[in-house]
Amino acid sequence: MIKSNFSISENDIIDKYLKKLNFNKVESFNFKNDGAFFKTKSNKVIVVTNDSINENIDFFRNDSPESLAQKIVTYNLSDLSSMGANPYSYTLSLSLPTNIGKIWIKNFTKKLFYLQKKYNFFLLGGDIGKSDQINISANFYGYIQKNQILKRNSSKIGDSIWVSGYIGQSHIGLLLKQKKIFINKKFKNYFINKYLFPQPCMFGSNIVSFANSCIDISDGFFGDLSKLLNKNKGVDLYYSNLPFSKYTKSLISKKIVSPKVLLNGGDDYQLIFTSSQKNDAKIINIAKKNKIKITKVGKIINQYGIFFRGSKIKILNRSFQYHF
Amino acid sequence: MIKSNFSISENDIIDKYLKKLNFNKVESFNFKNDGAFFKTKSNKVIVVTNDSINENIDFFRNDSPESLAQKIVTYNLSDLSSMGANPYSYTLSLSLPTNIGKIWIKNFTKKLFYLQKKYNFFLLGGDIGKSDQINISANFYGYIQKNQILKRNSSKIGDSIWVSGYIGQSHIGLLLKQKKIFINKKFKNYFINKYLFPQPCMFGSNIVSFANSCIDISDGFFGDLSKLLNKNKGVDLYYSNLPFSKYTKSLISKKIVSPKVLLNGGDDYQLIFTSSQKNDAKIINIAKKNKIKITKVGKIINQYGIFFRGSKIKILNRSFQYHF
Repeated sequence: MIKSNFSISENDIIDKYLKKLNFNKVESFNFKNDGAFFKTKSNKVIVVTNDSINENIDFFRNDSPESLAQKIVTYNLSDLSSMGANPYSYTLSLSLPTNIGKIWIKNFTKKLFYLQKKYNFFLLGGDIGKSDQINISANFYGYIQKNQILKRNSSKIGDSIWVSGYIGQSHIGLLLKQKKIFINKKFKNYFINKYLFPQPCMFGSNIVSFANSCIDISDGFFGDLSKLLNKNKGVDLYYSNLPFSKYTKSLISKKIVSPKVLLNGGDDYQLIFTSSQKNDAKIINIAKKNKIKITKVGKIINQYGIFFRGSKIKILNRSFQYHF
Repeated sequence: MIKSNFSISENDIIDKYLKKLNFNKVESFNFKNDGAFFKTKSNKVIVVTNDSINENIDFFRNDSPESLAQKIVTYNLSDLSSMGANPYSYTLSLSLPTNIGKIWIKNFTKKLFYLQKKYNFFLLGGDIGKSDQINISANFYGYIQKNQILKRNSSKIGDSIWVSGYIGQSHIGLLLKQKKIFINKKFKNYFINKYLFPQPCMFGSNIVSFANSCIDISDGFFGDLSKLLNKNKGVDLYYSNLPFSKYTKSLISKKIVSPKVLLNGGDDYQLIFTSSQKNDAKIINIAKKNKIKITKVGKIINQYGIFFRGSKIKILNRSFQYHF
């Protein structure tokens, strides 16, 4: 409808920067068709995730293209992992302002290339359009053995509740970026880096045979934990077990941040999963073998809510990501 | 990151309006998981399309939500059809300004529901975010027999070239909306309606056994036709055969629009396909049976370019849709 006025043409973006991301896979038709396809694998189904990043919601205008590449990949890989799937391919829908230039595209696609090699997936196709704001939407695809898909709502009473990695570091980074808290420069960069470059925990596919339920933490530990529950199920929380890094603990002890804010924060991209208590030793072993830090943080009980020493914990209603 | 301030909450959008679009299909997990999945069908592969609509590119701010629903569906269904696939499911990524209200959502989803029933597909999942402009991205999925996927670049020398429906009506509608041309009200509404509510030509799956190549017209007849070619292949065009409706012919004869502009226009969502000349009678029969208007508009020759009576036709470089 309106003429292109990117400082680099869309065809150049596709030919020079995006084409190398298809890894020459036949499924992409080398970007020369109206769509792509999936190979059928016997006894496996394909799972699909759909996650977007929007300016001022998921990132700031001046954040680097590398950070945006990291986020669109991590948001989606984390969803795949929480379902127990390994990544295979993805589509990418880019809406970009016309002042986006060659360097931006180059750095954005270079980071994508790095992450595709690291996690072993390729670009199937997509589209590019113009927009006042940066908006990036992706669908990621992974294969999984039939009937092994991990779900949110299938935890069982008595299940141990596990969480991977550390909680709250990305949220501290966000508070620092927003100048809502202030700390010394060395720590500051550490946390802001956690916000700008969140890493997915690709542990889901290792526990499909043992976990009863799984979710990734995007909206905050409490918010996402509560999505594992229903009106007949709740959580008895081992509060002192909650995994905060030593840097985070130091900020907590100085009262710069509160645990409550961090547990309601978001963008951790760690996994919360539940598994029968009798699997505890097995789960610990699998985690050790895969060099994944996990912590047992509670158990599923037959009363709705999240409880600590018998008192119900109030969850702030602050969901930012609206999946359906 | 920032608090929701839609006049209707995202959770309400999902529960009240989007949930009914999943047709209770198990693949969507009733929107209660981090993603969705595809059922495996024996001997079939899944094809995927990815098309977006952006404000000021594909539509205007004041266009109705019904028109936007029609466009995001038509753009993608048309891609599926051009690959020979029948639609099965889709994901939807909505970036919406916060002044979007309940009525808009209601009308948008009502139109989606209508189109889903008409073309037989359901909503797998997606996400909602906030943005200054409306931006809607969708991935559509269809099943197709292995090895039957229609491609753009596999036409054969001597193939007959067919086009479905009429060309240029949507582009006349756009010119009228932009006040670049003026005609009487009755005709005006007819053409603007073609622009606001383009219909996909779902004929692709009927010709998979006979067609050698296929593409849908989104960028314009000439532009998309040229994508069927390579440096050793071209088109001998039967110019007088090109299908313009009687309304369009009347505007052409009054010199209000020129054929050249219409053939370089876009958003027709008709199919261009090629098939061996020996299949001509079969193709005509299949079209009749399916009540699809088709016209033979040329043949594939062994010289690059689009030719009419030996002269090369210059194609305006005006691609608006950048698929990869």
